[in-house]
Parts: sequence; structure tokens; C-alpha cells
Amino acid sequence: MFFQTNILTVTVLSYMLIKFIPAIGWLRNYPREHLSGDLNAGVTVGIMLIPQGLAYALIAGLPPIYGLYAALVPVLIYALFGTSGQLAVGPVAMVSLLVATGVSDFAPSGSAEYIQMAILLAFLVGLIQFLLGILRFGFITNFLSHPVLSGFTSAAALVIGLNQLKHLVGLPIPRSGGVFEILKYVAVHVAQIQIPTLVIGLAGIAIILILRRLTPRFPGALIAVIVATLAVWTMELEGVGVAIVGSVPVGLPVPSISFFSVNAIRELLPIALAISLVGFMESIAVAKAFASKNRTTINPSQELTALGLANMAGSLFHSYPTTGGFSRSAVNDQAGAKTPLASLVSAGIVGLTLLFLTPLFHFLPKALLASIVMVAVVGLVDVREIRFLWRSNRSDLALLALTFVSTLVLGIEKGILIGVASSVLTFIYQASRPHMARLGRIDGSDVYRNIERYSEAHIDRGIAIFRIDASLFFGNVEFVRDALSDFLDSNDTTKVLILDLYPVNRIDSSAQHAMFDLHRKLSDGNVHLLLSGVKGPVRDAFENSGLSTLLGEDAFFLRIDDANQRALAIAGSYLDDGPAEDNSAS
Amino acid sequence: MFFQTNILTVTVLSYMLIKFIPAIGWLRNYPREHLSGDLNAGVTVGIMLIPQGLAYALIAGLPPIYGLYAALVPVLIYALFGTSGQLAVGPVAMVSLLVATGVSDFAPSGSAEYIQMAILLAFLVGLIQFLLGILRFGFITNFLSHPVLSGFTSAAALVIGLNQLKHLVGLPIPRSGGVFEILKYVAVHVAQIQIPTLVIGLAGIAIILILRRLTPRFPGALIAVIVATLAVWTMELEGVGVAIVGSVPVGLPVPSISFFSVNAIRELLPIALAISLVGFMESIAVAKAFASKNRTTINPSQELTALGLANMAGSLFHSYPTTGGFSRSAVNDQAGAKTPLASLVSAGIVGLTLLFLTPLFHFLPKALLASIVMVAVVGLVDVREIRFLWRSNRSDLALLALTFVSTLVLGIEKGILIGVASSVLTFIYQASRPHMARLGRIDGSDVYRNIERYSEAHIDRGIAIFRIDASLFFGNVEFVRDALSDFLDSNDTTKVLILDLYPVNRIDSSAQHAMFDLHRKLSDGNVHLLLSGVKGPVRDAFENSGLSTLLGEDAFFLRIDDANQRALAIAGSYLDDGPAEDNSAS
Repeated sequence: MFFQTNILTVTVLSYMLIKFIPAIGWLRNYPREHLSGDLNAGVTVGIMLIPQGLAYALIAGLPPIYGLYAALVPVLIYALFGTSGQLAVGPVAMVSLLVATGVSDFAPSGSAEYIQMAILLAFLVGLIQFLLGILRFGFITNFLSHPVLSGFTSAAALVIGLNQLKHLVGLPIPRSGGVFEILKYVAVHVAQIQIPTLVIGLAGIAIILILRRLTPRFPGALIAVIVATLAVWTMELEGVGVAIVGSVPVGLPVPSISFFSVNAIRELLPIALAISLVGFMESIAVAKAFASKNRTTINPSQELTALGLANMAGSLFHSYPTTGGFSRSAVNDQAGAKTPLASLVSAGIVGLTLLFLTPLFHFLPKALLASIVMVAVVGLVDVREIRFLWRSNRSDLALLALTFVSTLVLGIEKGILIGVASSVLTFIYQASRPHMARLGRIDGSDVYRNIERYSEAHIDRGIAIFRIDASLFFGNVEFVRDALSDFLDSNDTTKVLILDLYPVNRIDSSAQHAMFDLHRKLSDGNVHLLLSGVKGPVRDAFENSGLSTLLGEDAFFLRIDDANQRALAIAGSYLDDGPAEDNSAS
Repeated sequence: MFFQTNILTVTVLSYMLIKFIPAIGWLRNYPREHLSGDLNAGVTVGIMLIPQGLAYALIAGLPPIYGLYAALVPVLIYALFGTSGQLAVGPVAMVSLLVATGVSDFAPSGSAEYIQMAILLAFLVGLIQFLLGILRFGFITNFLSHPVLSGFTSAAALVIGLNQLKHLVGLPIPRSGGVFEILKYVAVHVAQIQIPTLVIGLAGIAIILILRRLTPRFPGALIAVIVATLAVWTMELEGVGVAIVGSVPVGLPVPSISFFSVNAIRELLPIALAISLVGFMESIAVAKAFASKNRTTINPSQELTALGLANMAGSLFHSYPTTGGFSRSAVNDQAGAKTPLASLVSAGIVGLTLLFLTPLFHFLPKALLASIVMVAVVGLVDVREIRFLWRSNRSDLALLALTFVSTLVLGIEKGILIGVASSVLTFIYQASRPHMARLGRIDGSDVYRNIERYSEAHIDRGIAIFRIDASLFFGNVEFVRDALSDFLDSNDTTKVLILDLYPVNRIDSSAQHAMFDLHRKLSDGNVHLLLSGVKGPVRDAFENSGLSTLLGEDAFFLRIDDANQRALAIAGSYLDDGPAEDNSAS
């Protein structure tokens, strides 16, 4: 007995452990046939991460090395705790932009303080995501609508791309959220554009695009990096004003918590919240897409936990906020990734690079990093969605346009706020209108159907039967109460109201109050209330609140037809004998 | 023809005018039998408004006269634009407290700047409410749950009451959000309590409570005001340290826009938003309750517009934010109010008081105003709801407790934020789980019912029929998609999936994307997708998005049984002949 309990405990504990650290599960039963795919994908993504990391660090306003730090520890930690075999975590363009937007209000770009705040931001984002994850709040992303996300992403992509223009043309364009200011600056200073820088940038874009078209899985960005670095080195282009990355530190990041500052936390909290949600949205969308494609499943709350741990652990090793990226995950999937082992391999490649290869980046021109970013963000501009909505849903297109324009004109932060606000309003509007149907009896049967649908459904005189097709809670019960009230006000011959509550699985206290209100209104008007199909949990709630006692045990019926038989008897007594006061509900 | 069009135009215009200014409607057809009730109620509430106004101004940290200003113009304007015959608009305790909390961060209580900001706040609150109203956003209050509101109200009542303690005991307790600090201060300074002040305060409470018990509709507070003023005047209690109201200006408020300040708007916007919503919530709850009792209806969006206009117009005449109050509306209703004429009469009484009677308030002790407030707020502590939830719904009770405790401990503003956040999370959680049912055929019929409910419902081999009982939108479609995916993953013998979309009235673009995803997943697994009962608007959406073309015209059926006949043919071909590749969906 004791032994059995122990076995049970061990089983439960190991189940919980695997649930929390999925890596234990897939490593223990690792299928040999996945190995070659995982290795191939891991190496491919690892090679992709190096130029991407350097480039995205530029977007975030950080020295390039921080992009590599962000591609190391978070990638390792996600591999242990994540549930997606294809998701490639690391620095991504959108989150990098949000970091730049959020931190540059408080410290000059690239300064020591700026770097500390970006790392603190990773810790905060991680903590928020981790807490939401263990509280099983994976569902919160449900409230952001697709058009809003699409509009925001497209606008952010344009902002990111245009903010890289300064590196591509070699002009000291001041950092700005305003797209038009950047274009104006370039137009005014067009004579000062550095031709060698521009040539490198454009050549970089051309190389990446051509190689991508020819061999999609070939590391085009890496080839461009090598060519550009060699060009600058051999032709000494640094001397004609081409900005280079310069000396990059060698070695793995050393753990540190020096970034911690209570004052800064208060300032960074709003942007940390925004990054937590936007980052998770991006990641979960990608993870779901590839899980569906590979016929596996992911667990949204565990994904939140894993991203949270990746960001928190990353912050201890100089990483800024990271998440799962779309293009990298697509490459991961195409290259054959089946388990997070691929991510472990990618992190290994980045680790080796940090240990041995960083001196090679000295002559890498920043213009080339800008071209990597620009090619990447063009893919984020979602023209297909605009075309889709133009054909199928103009009001959703308006929502997309609203988010797009406000992000472009008012900046990233206000754009997110406006997008979230319009999403939430749409959500509340939709969710507060549950489906209801007035039912009638199919003649000669005990079947009751929606009278709008079945013209043969028969309505008995003095009786109204409504079915409510949603669980009732504070958000939708007002609609139900108002609809029933309006119906009763305009149908004063109704003597019995039957509510079929079979589709109602839960009922909260606000909905119970509404039932009391409804009962009071009905009593005032001498209308009887009968309920059919009330399920166990709802029945219990009615018992506890005293509603069962108020309505009387004989007001509850299993089937609509039983309730209707009773209703016919009640309504009949009114019709035959005139209003019978003693029959009215108490 | 031209003449007819003109008549039509006039009719439509006058209909719109009545819709916007309901007073035109009820004044034109004013039923004589309502007159005595309206007059009686108007006078009763007008007399009640005077001590209440003076007292609530104290809560708001304003000189007492501003409570009378708030009881004049807003009351008049609401009477013209409002739709409730019983709602008594004016200063209320909760909103007064929010004003004090919001403005005291920026200016010293009672200073000229403080007063200007409180008035500006009324303008902002009015503008927000008006805009929400004309945009028909009356539904937004649906997202605040009953337990959260109840917990917040009870805690706010305690905070209000305890903040009045300084006037009741005559101690200079510093203003504070913290309940415990106030109690501690009183305990430490108990020796300095002014006995005459305390006696007046306690006597005031006793008079009001006793008169209320004896004759509920008698203006007890006014009697207490008269008795206390006479006592202070005749016994010269001012000399022994009893704080009095002092000189109160004579005359009606003169219109002014000197309160307007762009900088202050930015600071006040968050609190203005909070007051707009809390004020509207309180008002609409009261208005709905009395409309239901009187078997009339109100229009939530028009109520928002009316409150917005009342606050905006009020601000031009020195009013701070107002809304409809519960206790005053109850008195209004009991005294016989049937139309907003009652409010016009009340405003008249306040106007006459301002013109002729303000000098009489000179010797009115502040302690008496504190006793009026304390008696009023005790009624706001909602013990019944706690008892109700204890019996019927412990998780809602936890929500109430959370809001109550955080409001009491962290203060009014954080309390609201935590309450709103927990409401929104509950809302999203509830709304993102629509009702779905797997259907089976009742043997020997063409009727399909929920297999959980009807044990006799028959499931055909290889066929799964699901009914979705909600309109599909971004907030709930993930749940549906995940549920169907999970079902298909664990039931791989399914060859045909039939979705009964009859209860689906609308479908947004996110839900369309989910349908595309589902179709892709089904195609990968060689599962056919058939749809039944697709309504017009949903069908149109499918046409426009190209989903109809993708699924094929023959995938749509009017009735479930028609779809099932087709499904039986498809599934049968698999079962008889083994998997037939050429039958798979494209």
C-alpha cells in the first residue's frame, strides 16, 4: 500500500516535471529518425542567427554583440521548457524596435545605462510572461484581433525599415517615430549621402534577394556578410567613411545582475507589458502555425512559461528581450526541425561564434546589417491580408487601416494602444450578444425548434419559449435580460415564459441577479416562469442563491415539452376563465 | 410627391430630435395624472439635494457652495436629455471621492487651482461620456462584473466615511487613502477630540436615523441641518471651536470657461476616464432598476449622452462631476416621480436656495455635514451581496474580496484598476469559450441532437457532427479550432466533419482564417468538411473570402440531415472499398 502510494507519487511528480520541463519527455524518448533533421535545422538556423542577431541589435539601439548574446541563453532555455519543435527563439525585429522605442525615452541610445535598461527590460518581460504562464493565462491573447495585429505589424515593419535608412545611406538621421520626418531629412540632405555606404547596402540587398530566390535554404545573409566584410577590409573603405561594426568582445557572456534598478522598473513597466504581449502573440502564432502543419500540438500557457524563463535567464547573461520569430522558424521547419534539439544545436553555433569568431566582424559594415534588416521587414508587410479583407470584410479592413495609420503617424506605442483599445471594444461588443432563439413546437411531436428556421414550428397562445445558447455571465446577461424584457413589454398576452437553459453550462453571480430581476418583473406582470434543461452546476447555483426556492421546485423541467405541458395548463386557465389571480407566481 | 417627401423629412427629423431630446416627446404628450407625483417628488428631492450637495462638496475637497452648483445645471440638462423618469442626477459620494483622489495629486485641497481642476474634470468627464454616447458605446459597461463593482463600492464607502471622521471629531487628520492611517491618527490624538463637535455630529446621525425610521420620506437631513445651525448660532458654539461652513456666496453661478487648461487636461485624463465609467455604471444601474420597476425602458447610449451633456454644461456653471445617485433616485421614485419634470422642479428648489437662502448656512457646522455623509455611505456597504455570494458563488466572492481589500489597502485608484483588470480577465476567459455540441441522429428521424443530452442519439461511423452555438469572432474562434483539432487528433477514423453553423449569425475575418486553417488540416488528413445551416451573412462572407470556392458548392447543405446523407455516402465508400484517394478533399 505504502509502496503503491510511492509509485503513484513518483508517477505524478514525474508527469508534472515533464509537463513543466518538456525536454525531459522528448529527450528520454528521442526518436533516432529525427536526429538528422534536427541537426541540419540547428546548424542552418545557427548560421542565420549570427547576421540577424548583429542586425537586430542595431534596431534595438544596442552594440551588435548584444544580438549574439540574445541568440544564446534564451535559445537554450526555450529548448528545455518550450513545447514547439519548430519555433526558433531569439532576437526579432518587432521586439527590437519596441525595446528602442521604450528605452530611448530614458537613456541615450547605446550608452551603458541604455544597455542596462534593455537587459532589465528582458528580465521584466520574462517575469511577466512567466507569471502569466504559471497562472495559465495563455488565453489572454484571444482578445487581440487578427486585423489589428496585421495592421500594427505592417506599420512597425515600415518604421523599422525606415529607421535603418541612416545606416544604408550613411546620414546621421536623428531617431524618430515619425516616418515622414525621416523621409524629409533624407530629401533635405540628399547631397551628403555617402556613396560607398549606399553601394554596399544596395549590393547587400541584391545578394540576399538573389540567393534567396535561387536557393531558399542557402544562408544568403551570411554570404553577404562575408563579401561585404572582405570588401571593406581589402579596399580599406573605412577610410572613405563607411561605418563599421568595430571591435566586438570575445567570449561567452558572464552572468551579472548589475542591471537591476528599482527606479528603472517603474519607468519600464508599461513597455515591458507591451513587449510581453506582442512578443507572446508573435511567438504563439508562429508556434501554432507550425504545430498544425506538423500535426503536433503546443500548450499556450507552457509556451508563455518557457518564453518567460528564456527572457529571465537571458537577462542574467546580457540578453535583451527575445521571442519566437516567423522567418527563422520557417527556415527551421523547412530544414527539418522536429524537436527543440535543433535549438540546442543553434545555440551551440552561436556559442562557438562568440568564443572564436567575433574578431572577424570588425570590418563588417553597418550598411550591410541595415540591408539584412530591410529585406527581413519587407516580408512583414502583410499585403495579402489587405487583399483578403478587401474581398471579404470591409469593417475588419477599416480596423486594420486604423491601426496601421495610427502606428505610422502617432508612433509605435500609441499605435499599439489604439489597436488594443479597438480590439477590446470589438471583443466586448461581440461577446456581449449571445445567441438566443424563440422556439416553437413541431406539430404532432415533442420537438421544439427555432421559429425563425422552422416555419412549421407552432407557437401556443400565451406561451413564449426561449433557448439561450451561451453560458451566462456579467458580460452577456444584460443583453439576454434586455431582449426578454423588450419581448415581454411588446407581447403582453404572454402568460408563461419558458427558458430552455440546456446550453448554459455555467452561471455567475451577476447572471443570478439578472434572473432574480427577471422573476420580479414577471411576477409584477403575472407571468409564470418555467425553466427546462437546467444542468447540474447551474441547478446547484440556483439552489445556493435561493432562486430554486423562489421559483418553486415545480418550475423546473427536464425537457421543454414537459415544461410546455405545464405551461399549456396555466395559460389555458387564463384563456378559459379569464385572469385567475390565485394562479400568479408568488 | 414633393409635399409627401417633405412630410416624411419632417417626420424623420422630429423623430430624430425626440430621440436626441426626449423631453420634447414627454412634454408634448405630458399626461396630467403624472403632475402631482412629479411635483411632490421634485420638491422632496430638491430639499434633499441641499444638505447632500453641501456634504458631498466636502468629500470632494471643495467649498460647500460647489455642491449646490453641482445640483443645479446638471439636473436641468439631464431632465432635457435623459430617458429615465426616476433618476436623480447631481453630486454623489463615490464620484466626489474620485474627484478628491484625482485632483489632490495636483493642487492643494480647496485652493483656487483645485477648484478649477475639479470643474475641468467635469468638462472632461462630460466630453468622454458624450462621445461614448453618440458613438452608441452604452454596451461598454458590460465588462464590469457585479462582484467587482460591489467590492469597490463597499470599500469606497468605508474610505469616504473615514475621511469624514476629521469633521466629526474636530481633528486635523491629514487626507489619506489609507484607512489604517486615519484610525491610527485618531487613536493617537484621542485626547484632542473636540467634544462639542463630536456631540453635534453624533446627534446629527441620531436625528437622521430616527427620523428615517419613523417617516422614511421626511427630509431628516434638512431637519438636522436646521437644528444644528440653530444650536451653533444660539449657543455661539463657534467660539468653542466648532468648525462652521462660514459665508456662502449668494446667487446663481455665472457661466465661465476660465477653468480650461491644456496642461491640466493631460494630468486629469486618467481620472476623468475612471469617473466617466464609474459614474455611468452607477447611474445606469440605478436607472435600469427603476425603469424595470416602473415597466418603462431606458436607452443606455442616450443615458451616456445625457450625462455627458449634463456634465459639460454643468462645468460651464461651476459644477464638478455629477451622476445619478441611488438613494436620491429611490426617494424620487417613492415620492411619485414619473417623468424628468420632477428633476426640473428639484433644480428649481436648488436655484431658489442659491438665490435667497445661502446666508442661512453660515452657522451650519461641518460636523453635521459629516454625519449626513456617514449615514449615506453606510447604505453603500453591500453586506447582502457578500451573504448572497457566500451562499451561491465563492469564486465571485473572492473577486469581490480582492477588489474590496485592494481598494481599502492600496487606495481608490489602484482598487479600480485591479477590479477592472480582474473583470476583463474573467470576461475574456468566459467569452472565449463558446458552447459547442456534438450531435447524433435520433434513430428513425431526421432530427439531430446533442449526444450528451440524448443517449438515444446515434453516431454514424466515420462521421462527426458539431453544432457551434455562437457567432464566431477572433475572441472565441481559437477555442473552437483547438477543440475540433483535438477531437480530430484523437479520432483518426473520422472521414467527414459536418459543422452545423445555424446558430452563427456573424463571422469576422479572424474566424475566416481559422476556417481556412481547419480546411487545410482536414485536407492533410483526408477528412471531408461539410457545412449545414449556413445563414445569409455568413454565406456571403464565405463567398467573398473564396472559402465557398475552396470548399465547393456541394459542401453546403440547408439541413443537417441533407449533409449527413452525403456524409454517409462518402464515409461508406471508405468503409466498403478501403481508403479511396480520389475521394479526398482537394
